[in-house]
Amino acid sequence: MNLIALLTDFGTDDNFVGVMKGVIYNINPEAKIVDLCHHKKPQNVREAMFLLSYSYKYFPEKTIFAVVVDPGVGSNRKILVVKTKKYFFVAPDNGVLSFLSKNEIEKIINVKEEKYFLKPLSNTFHGRDIFSPVSAYISKGERIENFGNEIKNIKSIKLPEPIIRKNSLIGEVIYIDRFGNLITNIDRKTFEGFVKNHKFEIQIKNQKIKRISSSYTESKNKKPIAIFNSFDKIEISIYQTDTSKYIRAKEGTKIKILIS
Amino acid sequence: MNLIALLTDFGTDDNFVGVMKGVIYNINPEAKIVDLCHHKKPQNVREAMFLLSYSYKYFPEKTIFAVVVDPGVGSNRKILVVKTKKYFFVAPDNGVLSFLSKNEIEKIINVKEEKYFLKPLSNTFHGRDIFSPVSAYISKGERIENFGNEIKNIKSIKLPEPIIRKNSLIGEVIYIDRFGNLITNIDRKTFEGFVKNHKFEIQIKNQKIKRISSSYTESKNKKPIAIFNSFDKIEISIYQTDTSKYIRAKEGTKIKILIS
Amino acid sequence: MNLIALLTDFGTDDNFVGVMKGVIYNINPEAKIVDLCHHKKPQNVREAMFLLSYSYKYFPEKTIFAVVVDPGVGSNRKILVVKTKKYFFVAPDNGVLSFLSKNEIEKIINVKEEKYFLKPLSNTFHGRDIFSPVSAYISKGERIENFGNEIKNIKSIKLPEPIIRKNSLIGEVIYIDRFGNLITNIDRKTFEGFVKNHKFEIQIKNQKIKRISSSYTESKNKKPIAIFNSFDKIEISIYQTDTSKYIRAKEGTKIKILIS
Repeated sequence: MNLIALLTDFGTDDNFVGVMKGVIYNINPEAKIVDLCHHKKPQNVREAMFLLSYSYKYFPEKTIFAVVVDPGVGSNRKILVVKTKKYFFVAPDNGVLSFLSKNEIEKIINVKEEKYFLKPLSNTFHGRDIFSPVSAYISKGERIENFGNEIKNIKSIKLPEPIIRKNSLIGEVIYIDRFGNLITNIDRKTFEGFVKNHKFEIQIKNQKIKRISSSYTESKNKKPIAIFNSFDKIEISIYQTDTSKYIRAKEGTKIKILIS
Repeated sequence: MNLIALLTDFGTDDNFVGVMKGVIYNINPEAKIVDLCHHKKPQNVREAMFLLSYSYKYFPEKTIFAVVVDPGVGSNRKILVVKTKKYFFVAPDNGVLSFLSKNEIEKIINVKEEKYFLKPLSNTFHGRDIFSPVSAYISKGERIENFGNEIKNIKSIKLPEPIIRKNSLIGEVIYIDRFGNLITNIDRKTFEGFVKNHKFEIQIKNQKIKRISSSYTESKNKKPIAIFNSFDKIEISIYQTDTSKYIRAKEGTKIKILIS
Repeated sequence: MNLIALLTDFGTDDNFVGVMKGVIYNINPEAKIVDLCHHKKPQNVREAMFLLSYSYKYFPEKTIFAVVVDPGVGSNRKILVVKTKKYFFVAPDNGVLSFLSKNEIEKIINVKEEKYFLKPLSNTFHGRDIFSPVSAYISKGERIENFGNEIKNIKSIKLPEPIIRKNSLIGEVIYIDRFGNLITNIDRKTFEGFVKNHKFEIQIKNQKIKRISSSYTESKNKKPIAIFNSFDKIEISIYQTDTSKYIRAKEGTKIKILIS
């Protein structure tokens, strides 16, 4: 039995997510639904892509990800079913799936077949009227070719990449988690390839950090540490403190690694 | 197997909702529970009624809705099990079910039978002690007549209705969703019956809108659009903007439709 | 089939909780997962202990509680599997389980066996890499002795206890729920044992309360009432008002009961 994982920007205050689940259970009473997240920033496709890209591999094979971060709802943006070697994704074609490699993707369907949609079809809530029923039918074994025609490409957006300038590696904060930790776009491989055996100094705002820590608890006296986090990215953290607020960093704040 | 859908005003920070689920699984380990929502405004019966009325029809037949928006907990307000043609509702008798038509309701039980309640019975958390176990027993097939005596009426509250004054249709904002969109009480039928083939102008705060849009994306340059939303109500929205904050509208803000 | 109940401080904005569920389903596709709560105050072990201690008894026998409130993640704090007469707890050894009595505990395992962990093991997200897989394997029937060596004691923290000074019983606010109600550490037994048949006055901030109420609705005109809540503790509440904000009380605010 396929799992259906929901990632939306609906939050959980309104009834949107609950109604999507009702629609899914109505079509497939045996469905197993899991909330991936209904994250904080409305209509932030880049953030949704980031969260999904670091989450999906932890789910069982054949999981169906219904991704409803869809600022273009009701416009002529496409709705896609993407089948990869291990998973299914039902998502708007707005770049939220651009972390999937060409090699990983097996088939892309441009969803068109209205018989799978709820009627009357609204212009404002395709999560309810299209994404949920299509996901539910996939979970019941419907062949994805039945939803529409095959296409070859999906829209792509890019997360900012770290750059090297002389003896500096310059990255930026790409996500701030609920604890206020600063997740940067510098991963372990990039860091180690750049630093090698040199001494280094990490600079962010007016903070300087000279080593990589192996536990949040190594941060003492409100001094930030750098740590490779669970996504294997450099993360800046002050123990039991909202680092983002404390050093006034936000998404886009630069981080510089200097070698001497 | 019946689904149990929870609508409460408990939020999800505290343990209230989790404990309700524990109680349900303890009575019926096979229960399937879904969160409809645990919405933002504590003790707002009108808002809960609004959300439930636009959600319940998307759920499978025989779903049991446990509705715990219950400012009168511990007082002498009744607790009801209402059976409609397709669903069960377990709710306080405070008007939260007043969207159900006489025609739709098959039976109303005034819940009294303490053998189905948790002991000791608290005065502050009937969600745990009464609503959850009663819902769980219904999901196990208990006849609803066993919970108490049949009654004929439930308490009713009304959402404000739009009114017509000369060449104006006057409604109001009845809900603001998580994106800040303004949901009004003017539905498509009322709108079309009033406007017919006339030119019209929608006025809200100091904004003027002269057409109905078919996608949120038609809003450009921070200008609001009007759209029939997924509840088929007129909704006012500014693209990727918290409309409520931007034009300082709130629940109760008037909307006027003028024909010429 | 064992239920897995999650209590974390991850909130639900990020993908942390969703990823934990993915990991669990990946190991045990038949798992049944329930959110106990992902509560508001990050890294507040005392609050997590409080919420868990008043919740766990409502869950079915054999429920596995995965408790990830773990400010020491990546340090050398132990990770425990605790088997009690009715339940399993997977938690860091930081006092979050100190509500369990010696008598209730049957076995304590110091989790060490890395073959049950996700690889590569992160230093920042043991919820994903250790707590989730260990919980999933327990739900599949793995003997808990296989996770590590048995130990005899767990770390203990204490909630502040009420004290008696002459004719006063002095307690404090230990939790504020989402409605703003003030939950104190004075339980019914302590209260009744102290007050007996005397007249009493409850003082908190500049408020005075002379009786115990049996419903929130007995609070009129913004006057607070005292009520035994669903945890059987004295709770201070103003009807349909955020009491915490209204009388400026917070966790730690003293409450005094005077007898004459």
